Amino acid sequence: MAAPAAAAPLRAVAPWRDVLKRALGANRGVRHSRYVQLATVRPDGRPANRSVVYRGFLGEDSDVLTFVTDSRSRKIEEIAHCPWAEVAWYLPQTREQFRFLGRLTVVDAATEDAALQRGRLVAWKNMSDPGRQQFLWPHPGEPRGEDASVFKPEPPTGEDPVVDTFCLVCLTVEEVDHLSLAKNVRHRYVRGEGSEAGEAWQVQNVNP
Amino acid sequence: MAAPAAAAPLRAVAPWRDVLKRALGANRGVRHSRYVQLATVRPDGRPANRSVVYRGFLGEDSDVLTFVTDSRSRKIEEIAHCPWAEVAWYLPQTREQFRFLGRLTVVDAATEDAALQRGRLVAWKNMSDPGRQQFLWPHPGEPRGEDASVFKPEPPTGEDPVVDTFCLVCLTVEEVDHLSLAKNVRHRYVRGEGSEAGEAWQVQNVNP
Repeated sequence: MAAPAAAAPLRAVAPWRDVLKRALGANRGVRHSRYVQLATVRPDGRPANRSVVYRGFLGEDSDVLTFVTDSRSRKIEEIAHCPWAEVAWYLPQTREQFRFLGRLTVVDAATEDAALQRGRLVAWKNMSDPGRQQFLWPHPGEPRGEDASVFKPEPPTGEDPVVDTFCLVCLTVEEVDHLSLAKNVRHRYVRGEGSEAGEAWQVQNVNP
Repeated sequence: MAAPAAAAPLRAVAPWRDVLKRALGANRGVRHSRYVQLATVRPDGRPANRSVVYRGFLGEDSDVLTFVTDSRSRKIEEIAHCPWAEVAWYLPQTREQFRFLGRLTVVDAATEDAALQRGRLVAWKNMSDPGRQQFLWPHPGEPRGEDASVFKPEPPTGEDPVVDTFCLVCLTVEEVDHLSLAKNVRHRYVRGEGSEAGEAWQVQNVNP
């Protein structure tokens, strides 16, 4: 009887994953170190850019970066038109920048994939009460009315059902540019064609 | 004999100009408060995003935001292909965000417009010595060689001629989105068609 095959790795992780985790650890004293800037392309071809909060990897063994957004936000339409995005992330304590180029997937109330829907629920539970409350506010970007009470609905707790406007946004990364301004060192990571395995990432030391 | 016409205003300034100046003043204790994220569109239609340093208005009576870049940077090609950009700017001390949508103009060694060339010279003089030195480094983004001395050329001073790789990047703003996370207040400024006059800006109070 043959020996059992070695367990396949759950999922290989990208070589930049630990670099990012170390950087986040070194910057944990900076309250806004999880604020990143997410660039997308508008349906008319012009770029869009805004600050969003990084909400962690999709799971312990995942390289997918997650964010949340409101289903009524303009970026939903942008992503439907062009899924490509680049995140620019400046970490002030260590003076380093990450750029993550990849494709976005929006996970909304109608998404059927169970793992993605689980990620959406985890993100919902991890929000603060004021953070969850915002998803009950009136339509973002529309003219503001006189009635201030519409911004003070009863805040949902993490035990309440996920509200329909709450979306998880997942970035599947294809390229990473990591620049240390303190050390003047820059590395570029590019994922090999059609592979998600950590070994398939190419790393290059490039001029800053 | 008719009375002389009232002097035309040098140039009307946009209503968001003072809002930005106040925000910068209130955040001057944060060293990286002038780091902003500049989104452009790559020739293949995917977005690009990176941190750049805000270098001030093009002049005292101007609403044009300025940055600098290296002529060998990829953004030069991107801007030639699509001049539209959006700057996302998070100011941590006051917890507010500006988004500036507009068109970029690159001012390089060959630019003939005297006012723009003057702006380029002013930006060059305002750089630190290490900042100027970077424009003599090897080609950004290319594979890094073994020779460390190429990163240590004699740093040019502000009195030295502007090096050819030094470019000024000017953003002519068309729309501004100003969000205060502290106050949950958001204003959108949109410039009227074909006008540079301050009066032509429309301001709207919108839902955050």
